[in-house]
Amino acid sequence: MRILTGVQPSGKLHLGNFFSVIRKLKEYQNSTDLFCFVADLHSLTTFSSKEKQNENSYNALCDFLALGIDPNKCTFWLQSSVPEVTELTWYLSHSISVNQLNLAHSYKDKVAKGFNPGGGLFLYPVLMAADILGFDSDRVPVGKDQKQHLEFARDIASSFNREIGPVFKIPEPEIDEATALVPGTDGQKMSKSYGNTINFFDTEKELKKSIMSIMTDSAGVDEAKDPEKSHIFAIHSLFLNQTERESLKQKFLIPGTGYGDLKKQLLQDTLDYFAPYRKEREKIASDPTFVNTALKQGRDKARNTITTVLDRVRKELGIYRF
Amino acid sequence: MRILTGVQPSGKLHLGNFFSVIRKLKEYQNSTDLFCFVADLHSLTTFSSKEKQNENSYNALCDFLALGIDPNKCTFWLQSSVPEVTELTWYLSHSISVNQLNLAHSYKDKVAKGFNPGGGLFLYPVLMAADILGFDSDRVPVGKDQKQHLEFARDIASSFNREIGPVFKIPEPEIDEATALVPGTDGQKMSKSYGNTINFFDTEKELKKSIMSIMTDSAGVDEAKDPEKSHIFAIHSLFLNQTERESLKQKFLIPGTGYGDLKKQLLQDTLDYFAPYRKEREKIASDPTFVNTALKQGRDKARNTITTVLDRVRKELGIYRF
Repeated sequence: MRILTGVQPSGKLHLGNFFSVIRKLKEYQNSTDLFCFVADLHSLTTFSSKEKQNENSYNALCDFLALGIDPNKCTFWLQSSVPEVTELTWYLSHSISVNQLNLAHSYKDKVAKGFNPGGGLFLYPVLMAADILGFDSDRVPVGKDQKQHLEFARDIASSFNREIGPVFKIPEPEIDEATALVPGTDGQKMSKSYGNTINFFDTEKELKKSIMSIMTDSAGVDEAKDPEKSHIFAIHSLFLNQTERESLKQKFLIPGTGYGDLKKQLLQDTLDYFAPYRKEREKIASDPTFVNTALKQGRDKARNTITTVLDRVRKELGIYRF
Repeated sequence: MRILTGVQPSGKLHLGNFFSVIRKLKEYQNSTDLFCFVADLHSLTTFSSKEKQNENSYNALCDFLALGIDPNKCTFWLQSSVPEVTELTWYLSHSISVNQLNLAHSYKDKVAKGFNPGGGLFLYPVLMAADILGFDSDRVPVGKDQKQHLEFARDIASSFNREIGPVFKIPEPEIDEATALVPGTDGQKMSKSYGNTINFFDTEKELKKSIMSIMTDSAGVDEAKDPEKSHIFAIHSLFLNQTERESLKQKFLIPGTGYGDLKKQLLQDTLDYFAPYRKEREKIASDPTFVNTALKQGRDKARNTITTVLDRVRKELGIYRF
């Protein structure tokens, strides 16, 4: 079974990313035919500068390699290094109507916010469909946000298969019911756009600042605290097994430990938990040769796959080949 | 000076194509750095079947080679064989707003006709901009219909140059005031969509049928006819020099020659004029090896050019390269 997932290189990874998606990638890589890419063509829809674009891409690549993505166990590539996906985008763009594209949440949200959208943002769901369909994906892990994009990909595939020729696998959503809902420092869903993230590859000083900013009620050291209402507890629980969680719960319920100390403990456990990843990341980031070798390997594998799909597409479209 | 022109493989070439555009290509090829391509990616917006798509492309390629396009004197390629243009399309799509794309005539016309437009038709002007900008074109011959598309390409180029980085040449329109207005068999502008064309690569029988269908008034053999009001005269004039035109005019003015005879004369002159092209076309169409060799040569030249442009684009966008 082939599972495909793409991640935008939009900045630093946070606990929300880790516990909802990334943690599972290693599982997928061991048990399925994982295709995983850094979606740097997508991130052009929010381009700010060439330096930022370049840096974000490199950082995301290092992040994933440090987190255990193994180019020998899966197909891991940088989206822009396989531009065949843009060719497929053009072929697919005729199998979805402008009316349907107008309904895309990603587009509607930007318009609702008063943003003057570019053509690329409008076509974004078609590029995403090409990402998915171009690699014969069986399953795509989707959060609520991307559910519609997978629906678009399925619609496009069905329409192409019916009207042009039987080319595409219809991908299924991979929904993990057990996915942890990770609250941010303010209790809302942890998300870059809410500014409430805890970024596990930050410096220790930055990490400390984020964790110390977790919002609490005003219960003092010598008061009992309700763990079920505490964001500290919710976040800390992610790292703990049943026994550890019970023991932490007692610290909340029995007066004597202040929020400051509870946060310090969370900081320490976060650092301990990510220590091997952080070490690995440091090593990798200073070794572009390693990164580039991995990328070349992934690019070649990804390109082989999409080329066979593109050949089927071109044939059904009657593209003249010589 | 580099002149770029693309032609959709939408069926048989007619006298309108020849006298407004094609006749000039040989001139351009001798005096400028001509880039000329068969736009088979564009024609997917009106896809009907793979057989038709394939046949139309091959026919268009044979047409142009027969008409004197020389792969050694210009860069002549099939659009789909240089898919880099779709990569550029994605990069450019962020430099034009959805609002502006909504104003494209090609799109608005289809919507006005009650057509349910696909995403590809909506994005069409961006692909066209990539065609133009990807090859550092100085000039693009434009009829009235494509004027707006060139404007879009200029706008996109300016916007990218200003907001991302100085990458693109701003192309100028090549307007030929002397371009003949070619009427069709019904007197409207000769156009495939009006069904009033005379296709010079048709069989003799088909050609005869088209020419015989030219509309006339009901003046009999022994009446004087007004050449200025006759579509036969307007079309026939395209082939004639000043002296020949005067002599033809007399045949209209002096009673004794019926419209049937005047049409037969036009048929004969058409056949004579295109005889060498028709002979050449027959030879080429039965020699796919010749066609494919020309296409490979053109593809490689076109790819070289667009690759240098894409490198500049990727650099300014901060695309990570390895």
